Amino acid sequence: MRVVIVGGGAGGLSTASNIRKHDKDADIKVITRDKHVAYSPCAIPYVMCGEVECFDDIVMHRPEDYRERNIDILTETEVEAIDPQKKTVTYRGKDGLREIPYDVLVLATGGSPFIPPVEGTDLEGVFTIRTLTDGERITEWASKSKRAVVVGAGLIGLEIAYGLLRMGLEVTVTEMLPQIVPRSLDPDMAAIVQGYLEEKGIRVILGKALDRIVGDERVEGVVVGDECLEADLVVLATGVRPETKLARMAGCEIGQWAVKVNDRMQTSVPDIYAVGDCVEVYDAVTGFRTQSPLGSTAVRQARVAAKNIVGMDARFRPVLNAMVSKIGELEFGAVGLTEVMALQNGIKVVSGKKRALTKARYYPGAERIDVKMICDLRGRIIGCQMVAKERVAERVDTMSLAISQGLTCSELSETEFSYAPPVSMVIDPIILAAEDACEKLKRVNGRPQD
Amino acid sequence: MRVVIVGGGAGGLSTASNIRKHDKDADIKVITRDKHVAYSPCAIPYVMCGEVECFDDIVMHRPEDYRERNIDILTETEVEAIDPQKKTVTYRGKDGLREIPYDVLVLATGGSPFIPPVEGTDLEGVFTIRTLTDGERITEWASKSKRAVVVGAGLIGLEIAYGLLRMGLEVTVTEMLPQIVPRSLDPDMAAIVQGYLEEKGIRVILGKALDRIVGDERVEGVVVGDECLEADLVVLATGVRPETKLARMAGCEIGQWAVKVNDRMQTSVPDIYAVGDCVEVYDAVTGFRTQSPLGSTAVRQARVAAKNIVGMDARFRPVLNAMVSKIGELEFGAVGLTEVMALQNGIKVVSGKKRALTKARYYPGAERIDVKMICDLRGRIIGCQMVAKERVAERVDTMSLAISQGLTCSELSETEFSYAPPVSMVIDPIILAAEDACEKLKRVNGRPQD
Repeated sequence: MRVVIVGGGAGGLSTASNIRKHDKDADIKVITRDKHVAYSPCAIPYVMCGEVECFDDIVMHRPEDYRERNIDILTETEVEAIDPQKKTVTYRGKDGLREIPYDVLVLATGGSPFIPPVEGTDLEGVFTIRTLTDGERITEWASKSKRAVVVGAGLIGLEIAYGLLRMGLEVTVTEMLPQIVPRSLDPDMAAIVQGYLEEKGIRVILGKALDRIVGDERVEGVVVGDECLEADLVVLATGVRPETKLARMAGCEIGQWAVKVNDRMQTSVPDIYAVGDCVEVYDAVTGFRTQSPLGSTAVRQARVAAKNIVGMDARFRPVLNAMVSKIGELEFGAVGLTEVMALQNGIKVVSGKKRALTKARYYPGAERIDVKMICDLRGRIIGCQMVAKERVAERVDTMSLAISQGLTCSELSETEFSYAPPVSMVIDPIILAAEDACEKLKRVNGRPQD
Repeated sequence: MRVVIVGGGAGGLSTASNIRKHDKDADIKVITRDKHVAYSPCAIPYVMCGEVECFDDIVMHRPEDYRERNIDILTETEVEAIDPQKKTVTYRGKDGLREIPYDVLVLATGGSPFIPPVEGTDLEGVFTIRTLTDGERITEWASKSKRAVVVGAGLIGLEIAYGLLRMGLEVTVTEMLPQIVPRSLDPDMAAIVQGYLEEKGIRVILGKALDRIVGDERVEGVVVGDECLEADLVVLATGVRPETKLARMAGCEIGQWAVKVNDRMQTSVPDIYAVGDCVEVYDAVTGFRTQSPLGSTAVRQARVAAKNIVGMDARFRPVLNAMVSKIGELEFGAVGLTEVMALQNGIKVVSGKKRALTKARYYPGAERIDVKMICDLRGRIIGCQMVAKERVAERVDTMSLAISQGLTCSELSETEFSYAPPVSMVIDPIILAAEDACEKLKRVNGRPQD
C-alpha cells in the first residue's frame, strides 16, 4: 500500500506513525512545505517566554527518525496537483517537479493565518504565527524591539503576548470583540484571565477593530479605533483559515467551514482522507458542524484515519473542544459550549458558578479556582470553564467525560471525588459548581426543593 | 426538631452544618469526647512534616463559630446511654450527668485505633494516631526522640512515617503484609511508592508481623520477625475499628463490618441515623458490603443524612473509595478495585499499564506518571491506580466518574481530553493505559484485532 500524506504537522505525522504501527509494510511518504517536522507549535510561546530553553527542544523528531521507521519525509516541498482519477500527486521539491502514485492520500494541510484586509500588514516587523520558523523570526525581531502589539486575543494571541512580555517588551493586545478568548470562555470567566494579564503588565484593548498598520518600510504603529499604538513589532493572531486548496483541487466536497469528512475521516473522494485543522467536525452538544483547530483533535483524528486506512474499524466522534492553556502561572480551560454559544444556538441554560480553592483552606499554596458550569434546563451539563493557578487541565478532562456521558448537574454532584488536604478540597469545586447549577435550575424551573 | 449528633468529626459536624443550611430552626446539639472540633485529622501528618505550620492551623472552626450559627457543641463529653424508646441521650460532661431528649439522633462515632494484642503496647512512647491531641503528643515526644518505628504501612502509617522523617528521626515502617498500602494499591504500584520512601530514607520491612514492643517503662525497641528494632517512639497505625458501642446500645443492627444503614443513612432503629467511619457501605463494583473510612465519604454521607433529616430526598450511593495521598512530592491515588481485590472477588481482569509523563516530553518539569487500569473481561473499567509527582488527584476523579458510568476501556480511549504542553501530554496517560487494556483484552479474549 502506497500512502501519501500532505502535511507534516500533528495530523499528518500521527497518521504516518499510526499507519506504521499497524502495518509494517506500507510505503509511507509525508510531504510538507515546512522546513521542520514533528515540532509542537503549541509550545512556541513557551520558548519565547523562556520556560522551554530553545526552539530545538520542541522539535521531537528529525526526518531521519522517521526514515528509520521507514517513513519518508519530504520537507520544503510543495504539492502542486492531485489527480484523483489517476491517483497521483505532483510536487515540487529540492529536485524539481515529480509525480508519484498513491493508493491512499491523506490531506493534513492544516490552516493558514488569516490576515485582516487592512493597510500595512506587509510592513517589516509584522508577523503571523503558525510555524516554528515564524516563532524564530518573531523571537529574533523581538530581541531588537521595545513595543509589541498583538492583534487578536484568542489563545495564541495571548500566549504570544505573554511570551513577548517575558522577553521584556511593552505589550498591548487588541481584540475586536468585547472580551478575550471568545471561542472558549464567557465574558465573566474571560475577565478573570484578563485581570491576570493586566496585573502582569499587558495592556488589553477590547471592542476595537484593527484599522491599519502604519510605518514606512518597518512598522511604526497600529491604529485601533481612534488610537495609534506605537509598535516596532506586530503579531497578527487573528485566526486561522483551513487550508482547503488541495482538497478543492482533488474535488473533495467542502462543507460549511472546511473539508467535509465522514466519521472514518474519509473525504467525498475515494481513497482520500483528511485530518486536522483542514477538516470540519460535528459539535457533540449542538450536532452542528464546527471547527476544532486543536493539536489534540488532529492527533485523535489521525489515529482514526490510520486505523481505517489499514483496514481496522475506528470512528471519530463529535467534539467538545476540550482545551486548556497556561499563561504564566494561570491555567484556564474549557469544554463544551459557553453560555454565550448556548444562547446563540437557542439553548436556554443555567450556569452554576463557584469560586473555591485548589487545596484545603489551611494548606499553604491553596489557590483560588473559579468554575462555571453550563446546564440546559433539563439539567444536562453542556459546558464548563475553569480558571486557577493549578490543576485545571485534569478537571477539564473530568468535565469532558461528564458531558460526553450526558450527565446532569444533579448526577455529577453525587459523584465520588478523591480528597487529601495538599491536593483538593473535601468537596471538589466542580461538585460545588454542579450544586449551584442544581439550585439555579430549581429556581428557573419553579419547582419546589426536593 | 431536636437533633442530637454524637461525634465531632467530619461526619458529625457536616451533618450539623447541613441541617442548619436547610432548616434555620432546628435545635442542633453535637456531643464529642474530643477536646477539639472541626479539625482535619488527614492533615496531622502535614503539620508534623512542617508543610502546615502548626496544629492550630488545621482547626477550621472553634465551638464558638458553631454557636454563632446556633449549633451547640459539647466537647470532652461522653455519651453513656441511649434510650431509643424514650428517645433520650444520657451524657457525662463538664457539669456531670445529664439526660436530654431527641427527635432525631445521629451517630457519627467514627472509629478507634486497633491495638495489636501483643506485649508492650502500653509502654510510654507508644502511640496510636486518631485525634489532634494524638498528633500533638506524638510531635512533642518525637522532638525528644531519635528512632521511630511505625507499625502498619497503610496511608496513615506512611504519612506519619514521612512526618517523623522530616522531623529528623530515623524511621522504620513495618507491615505484616508483603506490600505497603494494601487497601488501595496493587503490589506493582505499591512498589513505586515504596521506592520513593526508601529513597527519602525510610526503611520499610514487609511481611513481618509485630511480635512485641520492649522496654522498661518507656519503649526501647520493637520486635518484628526475628529482628529487634531500636526505637524511642512507636506509632501503631494498625488500622481503625468502627466505634459501634453506642449503636449496639441503641439496638441498631450491626452488619458485617459496622453499623448498617440504608441509602438515606438511617439505621434499623427509627429516628437514628449514622454516618462516617462507624457505618458500612456498599462497594459499587462488587455490590458487597465494605468500609469507606475516608473523610470525603463521611462528608458526603453527612449531606445525605442532613437532607433526609429535614425532609428532603437524597440517597447515598455505593462507593468506589476514591482516594489520594501526597507524601513528600509524591502523589498517589486509587479508585475502585485493585487487581488483587478483583481476583479475591472472583472477577477475572486485565490490567492496562502505562508509564508516561505529566507534561509534553520536552517541557521542563515533566514528571513520570504510572497508571494501572483494571478492567473485567468485557472491558468494563473497575479500578485504577496512579503514582506521580503531580496531577494525580483530578485524574483519580476522572476515573471515578468513568467507573461509576460503567465505561469500558475502549469507550474511555475515545474520550476527548484537553492538551497544552505545560500541563499534559497530547494523548493523556489515562488514554494510553486504556488502550493498553484494550490490547490485552483482545489477546485474552482471543479476538482478532478490530
